[in-house]
Order: sequence, then structure tokens, then C-alpha cells
Amino acid sequence: MTDTQFAPAPSSLAYVPFLSVENMMKMVHAIGVETFLTELAGYIEDDFKRWPEFDKTPRVASHSREGVIELMPTADSDNYGFKYVNGHPKNTNEGYQTVTAFGVLSSVANGYPILLTEMTVLTALRTAATSALVAKYLAPEGSQTMAMIGNGAQCEFQAMAFRALLGIETLRLYDIDASATEKAVRNLTAQGFKVTACKSAEEAVEGAEIITTCTADKQYATILTDNMVGPGVHINAIGGDCPGKTELHKDILLRSSIFVEYPEQTRIEGEIQQLDEDYPVTELWQVMLGQAQGRTDAQQITLFDSVGFAIEDFSALRYVHAKATDGGFAEKLDLLADPDDPRDLFGMLQRANA
Amino acid sequence: MTDTQFAPAPSSLAYVPFLSVENMMKMVHAIGVETFLTELAGYIEDDFKRWPEFDKTPRVASHSREGVIELMPTADSDNYGFKYVNGHPKNTNEGYQTVTAFGVLSSVANGYPILLTEMTVLTALRTAATSALVAKYLAPEGSQTMAMIGNGAQCEFQAMAFRALLGIETLRLYDIDASATEKAVRNLTAQGFKVTACKSAEEAVEGAEIITTCTADKQYATILTDNMVGPGVHINAIGGDCPGKTELHKDILLRSSIFVEYPEQTRIEGEIQQLDEDYPVTELWQVMLGQAQGRTDAQQITLFDSVGFAIEDFSALRYVHAKATDGGFAEKLDLLADPDDPRDLFGMLQRANA
Repeated sequence: MTDTQFAPAPSSLAYVPFLSVENMMKMVHAIGVETFLTELAGYIEDDFKRWPEFDKTPRVASHSREGVIELMPTADSDNYGFKYVNGHPKNTNEGYQTVTAFGVLSSVANGYPILLTEMTVLTALRTAATSALVAKYLAPEGSQTMAMIGNGAQCEFQAMAFRALLGIETLRLYDIDASATEKAVRNLTAQGFKVTACKSAEEAVEGAEIITTCTADKQYATILTDNMVGPGVHINAIGGDCPGKTELHKDILLRSSIFVEYPEQTRIEGEIQQLDEDYPVTELWQVMLGQAQGRTDAQQITLFDSVGFAIEDFSALRYVHAKATDGGFAEKLDLLADPDDPRDLFGMLQRANA
Repeated sequence: MTDTQFAPAPSSLAYVPFLSVENMMKMVHAIGVETFLTELAGYIEDDFKRWPEFDKTPRVASHSREGVIELMPTADSDNYGFKYVNGHPKNTNEGYQTVTAFGVLSSVANGYPILLTEMTVLTALRTAATSALVAKYLAPEGSQTMAMIGNGAQCEFQAMAFRALLGIETLRLYDIDASATEKAVRNLTAQGFKVTACKSAEEAVEGAEIITTCTADKQYATILTDNMVGPGVHINAIGGDCPGKTELHKDILLRSSIFVEYPEQTRIEGEIQQLDEDYPVTELWQVMLGQAQGRTDAQQITLFDSVGFAIEDFSALRYVHAKATDGGFAEKLDLLADPDDPRDLFGMLQRANA
């Protein structure tokens, strides 16, 4: 108390770069949505190709009657990242988001966070980038048309990613809620897509080489039936992503070659929770490394049973960290106590009262 | 894009109350350090007394050569909380803190965070409050003197909590680093304690009814030997808190009645990692509820084998949330995306570019 007459300002070590929702959106537009998605897909592909380097754990979930709150951590030798994400299906009725998220990237060397960022928008972007990246490996060559069943918050991001990475321009949309389809048609038409609003899932899949299913409600368990899926199609199944929640009829799975992110997690949360525990699936990182085969013939039905994995968030955190630092989009958050003498935390507290 | 010509300000749902290090310190002083510790101990005691209501999981740790990064989640039916905390023993050599932390409290009902807060200072306070609370149940009646071996960042907080809850005014300090003791003597004398700097651990424990051990370095594994601990003493062992790190000689444990927070975690991290897996220990929540006995006679050695548990952080988050909201210490952080129509996240992103 006697040697310092004033409370010194925190040193730079005390501040954590913070990317707010507003600044995330500004940054996405400064980069351009499709460029962002393409570059992000590159980061995800890089990380999938070094899959064995990661410290992988299943997400840590806290379930309640209303929903779930999850922590999704992962790390390589340089960085540690985690995402906080909730899933509360009834939230929209009360004006809240079903899913919100934020995340942190840290230095493994000293444990200090180097980025805190919103991840609601970022998760939508990384989910879409992952889907399109996977489709680059699995969708039939020359695909032009994508059916999108479920036109909620993820729909337009998927469309943007598939155009950016695969050149898909033609979309056939269906949702049980016609107003969701109207919203998506409006947004996607403004982005220059050729969009058809359909009256049924059957109508939507007509002529589509790629079928994206992205529904949120637990009660609609079979949005694609076996007869709707023709040979050669790639199915991008986004919405089956927690225990007790699936979108596809089991018969479709049995006709498909199934590709997954992390089998330990997908067998609990994905479409394949309908199948035996040892049903053969292919890990995507092995396809990307050329260690396993992707699509092998034009008649094959390929299925990406997407549930979202921590490494995709890690890639997104890495990408955003690089871009936010370069672009000056990050604010400084006074999140970490940083006494001049690390042993003198109490002295720092007392000087703050001086 | 057409129906809104400007980017609307985020609604109140998008903002998360944020308590910075600076505002945490201001709040602690506005309340008063000892009042803060006493009230916080009350929250911790309340939560220990409803222990079975909590969703408990061992912490999720990511180990590296340099240290560890941990997530510590827990929840009751109303709130979910987690703490991010690192432990990097070599950090002090480079001007970084060994331990930094931040945490989040959320609503279980909708998954939205209701508080983001620094927890470096707060963890020091909750660790001290827990120690003093436990000593209220276990220390010999009429205790007046506490020996403190290890005079690092936690030392003064422990002293303040023991004065606030037990009236301890007399302290005997020892650290292998004399400058750490000097720092603690300076800080604690300024707070009105009667402090003696000792030249050895043996000297420090002379006449003390309570012995607090709080050392950080993994290599000093036996700071208390059996001959130093007389009958009737209460040992408050803070520093043995990860696998391979202990402070007390095994013989002391065998003479003591051992009290722990959460046996599943303490057997891995605490002093009792030196004992058999089924060595009997008493859970503190049962003592507080009167379901198990605390100290039963004046000759008994009682040992609190403290490792720190998620519920204590939860109590601290609950307390700070109440105080920060009442006192206006929280800032507003734009952490959650909140589109007017929850299904129209893409529309929100596009309008931000308008």
C-alpha cells in the first residue's frame, strides 16, 4: 500500500481480445460471406488432415428438461479451444434463440485465453463450411441442384457455402412451416440463387443431386423416407444431432455409405444411433487424407451424418483469431487479473482501493 | 434487406452482464473484504447443504507438458455454471500468473448466460471462504493462532477469511522463499493482524491450533512431517491439488480424521492420493447437514484435504451475480446473437451490412 499511491492500469497481459456479435458481423462482411466460408473450410480441412494430433473428448453435456448446455473442448500442441453452446428447442416461442454459443481460444504454453468470441453466427458459418467441404469429397461430380428440407436459421448459410465451394446455384426448398420457406426464399433470391419453394419434401428432392436436411424439432423423426432417395444422391444430414433426434428413415441409412466426423460422438447423437453399435462408417479425416475412399461410383448414395465436432469449432476459432487480429476487429476485455508480482494478488486488490 | 434500412441495435437479450477484474475489485471493496468472505461462505454453506441437488462431474482437464487447462461445470435445477482455469507452474518466471480463471453462470431454463466474470480474484476469495467455513466445523474451539506455510497469492485471503469467520488474529508465517513471507507480513500487518515471520515450518507451527499449508511447487512434497503435528490440531491443506502433487507426509494422514469436498475428485488430486482407494474419508456436506460427525474430541487431528470443487465456484458465481446486479458493477457484453426472428440469423447478418 505504501509503495504505490495509485491503482496502476492493468498490463497488456490482463486483456483478452474479444470479438462481439457486432464486430463478428462487420468482419464477415469485410471479408465477404463466401470468401469467409471458403477460407474457413480451408482451415477445417487442414485440421481434419491432422486429426490424430488433437486431444479429443466427447462434449460435456448438462441436460435438463428444457434443453442442454454443452462444453466442447479440444486442443492441439499450440492451442486449446472450447465452445459453450446451448440447445433449447422451446426458446423460439419466447423470443430466444434455440442455439447460442460463444467460445475461447487459448495458448497451451501458458493457459492464457487469446480470444473470446461470439459463436452463434460463427457456428452457423462453420457448420455450413463443414457441410460444403464434405460435399466436395462426396457429392456427385457436376452437381447443380440442392434440395433443402428445413429452412430455419442454418438454411441460407448452407446455401452460401455450397455455392462458394461447389458452385451450386439452384435450390429447392421445403419446410413444414411455410413462413420459414418464405424467409429463406427472400434471403436467397436476394443473394442471386435460383430458388423454388416446394409444397412437400417429395417435390423438393426432385432432380436434386444433393439433399440437405436441417430440421430442429425432435418430434419429426422421418423427414426423408426411403422412396424419396434415388441412386447417386449425396445426403447432407445436419439436423439429427442429439440422442433421440433423427431425421432419416433407417432404410436410407442401410442403402448409404455413411461418413462421420467422430464415430464415438456420432453413434450417440447422429442418424446412426438407429443402427448397431459396430455398423461400419467412414471417418472423414481419413477420406481427406486419402486413407479411406469417398464416393466410388455414380450410383452410390453417400450420407454425411453431421453432428458437429469440437475440432470444427477449433478451426473456426483459429481462423477468426487470425482475421480479428489482422483486421482490428477485436476489442480488449479486462478478464484476467494481472498483479505486478504474481504472488501478490492481495496487494493488487488492496491497491485497487487506494 | 428491404424491410429494414439500418442495422438495429441488439435487443437486451443479446447482452451478457460482464464483471471485469477492475469492477470485481471495486465491488469487493464496496462490500468490504471480510463481509464479502463471510457472505460468500454463507452461499457456499447453503450449497453444500443441498449437495445431492447438483449435477456433479469431475473437472474436464487438458494436460500438456507446460500445465493444465480445466473446465469445471456444475448445475442445479435453476442455474448452470462453469469455470475455466489454467495451472502453469512456470508462468511466474515469465511474468504470467500460475492460475487465471474466468467463469459463466447461465439459466438452465433457456441456456442463456446471465453472467461472465473474472474468477482469478474470485477463486482466491472462494478458496479462502471454503477453508474458513470448513474450519468453523472442524477447528478446535477457541482457536487463536494459525500457522501458514506457503505465503504465495492465496495466503492473505486465507488469513482474512479465518479472521472474518473464526476471529483468528495471530499468524505465524513461513515460506521457503523469504520474500514471499515479507510480502505477506507487509500485507497482513497493514490489515491489523499480529504476524510472526518464522525461519522454518517447525517454528511456524509452534502453538498454532490451525495449520494452513498452501504451497504451489510440485517438487516440495513434504512440507509437514509427522513430528510437527500435535494432537488437537486442524490442518487446512490447500496446496495438494493435482495428481503427483502433495504437501503432507503420509503418516500425518494416517493419524488424522480426513474431510473432503468430493471424494471422486479428491482421491485423484488431493493428499489422499497417497492412501488406498477405499481409505475412509468424510464428506463435508454431510457434516454440515449433521449427517456425519465433524470434530468429536479435543485430541483429534482434523484434516481438510482441499482441492477445490465446482460447487464452490457455482456458489461464488451465484453470490457475485446477485451483488453485481444489485450494485451496478456489471457492464453489458454483446456476446449473443439475437435476431428479431430466431429463424432469420442470416437476415440479421445481412442487415448488419446495410
